[in-house]
Amino acid sequence: MEIAILLYDGMTALDAIGPYEVLSRIPNAVTRFVGTERGLKRTDQGSLALQADYRLDEVTSPSVVVIPGGPGQSQQMENGPLLEWIRAVHGQTRWTVSVCTGALILGGAGILRGVRATTHWLAMDALAGYGAIPVRERVVFDGRIVTGAGVSAGLDLGLQLVARESGATCGREIQLWIEYDPQPPFDCGSPARADDELLQRLRQRSRFHRKEA
Amino acid sequence: MEIAILLYDGMTALDAIGPYEVLSRIPNAVTRFVGTERGLKRTDQGSLALQADYRLDEVTSPSVVVIPGGPGQSQQMENGPLLEWIRAVHGQTRWTVSVCTGALILGGAGILRGVRATTHWLAMDALAGYGAIPVRERVVFDGRIVTGAGVSAGLDLGLQLVARESGATCGREIQLWIEYDPQPPFDCGSPARADDELLQRLRQRSRFHRKEA
Repeated sequence: MEIAILLYDGMTALDAIGPYEVLSRIPNAVTRFVGTERGLKRTDQGSLALQADYRLDEVTSPSVVVIPGGPGQSQQMENGPLLEWIRAVHGQTRWTVSVCTGALILGGAGILRGVRATTHWLAMDALAGYGAIPVRERVVFDGRIVTGAGVSAGLDLGLQLVARESGATCGREIQLWIEYDPQPPFDCGSPARADDELLQRLRQRSRFHRKEA
Repeated sequence: MEIAILLYDGMTALDAIGPYEVLSRIPNAVTRFVGTERGLKRTDQGSLALQADYRLDEVTSPSVVVIPGGPGQSQQMENGPLLEWIRAVHGQTRWTVSVCTGALILGGAGILRGVRATTHWLAMDALAGYGAIPVRERVVFDGRIVTGAGVSAGLDLGLQLVARESGATCGREIQLWIEYDPQPPFDCGSPARADDELLQRLRQRSRFHRKEA
């Protein structure tokens, strides 16, 4: 099973690495990191670069495609060859996946119309603009389109996808192998449980980031 | 605050990316990915390469050093310049950190004698061989040495470290920003809650991996 994971400048690393660390452990999975061009893609914090080993046109029929998000997502909305590639490969994937604001790229490619989907909590309004039906859940399956909430949701998404694709036994093995027994120190990882002051601070920072971009 | 994160061939990507995605968001943090040599380091699954921007000798006084684990850890036990670098920088770090079998590298550098520490559940016995006091917890602080359990534990470790270093408010902001509200699909992410058959399968696979290496 071929898995294609998109890389681009300004993406958030964990959006891609969460699903990768889980999905690449499916027996017989072949994972390929793809970019509009081959080479290093520097992630949102500036301090980390990941290598795209393949150009988009070298990976034409993946079974699974994963589109990460991050501040660099907004530049990708005008990346015609990428949006065209997503439409083309989506025609025959088993699963088309996004994490975080990667959902907006799927939206930009025009494949979320009428689709139940999620994204980073700060981008839920934008999602509706692409005709998607925004759903406040951590992982949303709608047919073979699978969308995850912000950044760290890709781990839960990956494990749910393994269970559907390769069975619960395989999912359990991978979850124990990566020792995924999360113990978050705070109870504020979802906007539903964060206090108003915290939500407001991050909303302001998000607007600032958007102005910079 | 300078944060140095080690990269090497055969490491597990999430071991490094979990702490990175959290710690690099501390205000004024400067994160540097370091390797014995600069350049691409290919992770354990073979399909992903991360770029070491700096050589070890270019980063001599980081406040935080993070040592990831993975199957490639065993080769690093004979990497004299790395073990020497770890001993040298540990002399003045605020926090010396490992995730997963990265703890064995800290052990190999000789800095875990008499230290309470954790590692991947399949490597707990090996940890005792370095004079450490193995502790079956997800994140263990002993003075300024912080060790995490397998692979995904680096996220929880990172957030706990942010809370101690920069306060709970900063920790909460980062946790909500990366929307860390985990919902693992199975209740078997810790060996304490996995059934014997599953534990046995992964133990066998682990032995197989070690023979291959």
